[in-house]
Amino acid sequence: MNSSSKEPICLPSLKILGDYWKLRIIDVLSENEGLRFNEIARQIEGINTATLTKRLKDMCSDNIINRTEHSRADVLYELTDLGKEALPLLHAVNHFSDAMSKYPASKK
Amino acid sequence: MNSSSKEPICLPSLKILGDYWKLRIIDVLSENEGLRFNEIARQIEGINTATLTKRLKDMCSDNIINRTEHSRADVLYELTDLGKEALPLLHAVNHFSDAMSKYPASKK
Repeated sequence: MNSSSKEPICLPSLKILGDYWKLRIIDVLSENEGLRFNEIARQIEGINTATLTKRLKDMCSDNIINRTEHSRADVLYELTDLGKEALPLLHAVNHFSDAMSKYPASKK
Repeated sequence: MNSSSKEPICLPSLKILGDYWKLRIIDVLSENEGLRFNEIARQIEGINTATLTKRLKDMCSDNIINRTEHSRADVLYELTDLGKEALPLLHAVNHFSDAMSKYPASKK
């Protein structure tokens, strides 16, 4: 029997993993090089301004995204190098979401 | 610009993915075919009985693990087929954890 404590899970990664909106933001930014707030909002169905503002702020301070202010009216968001490393997380979530539809839910 | 809404993230998957203890349980069970409660507890540093009990119950009803009662004193837990589909997630979490140590944290 192996010990499984060799690779403790890093808690900051769970801040991203467990958050639907952060995963959606990473998804949108992964397909676009630099987006404005309104462009991100438009591509994420159901997100509201307060939620998007809060998530972007958190993700900037976690070094997942960069915020570049070219002018007051021209602020662009993009994934950092670390943010790009979160893409396998997205793929794994999508893989698991697919699997959930393949296998029956609870047997009880 | 692509639409990124093609693969909506399934919300129930985030119940599993964002939980540190559930990921640890999946990790331990992925390396062992059928474990008793005490064996799981022993392999997960820092988990207490109440937390492990609750997580195992949730994961059974979410069809992530199977609970097989051979006798009152002999109950084994193992990953279901769906539970095994969560393993890429564990790898992605480990990948991201590695990346976090490679890139500097916040610049501010």
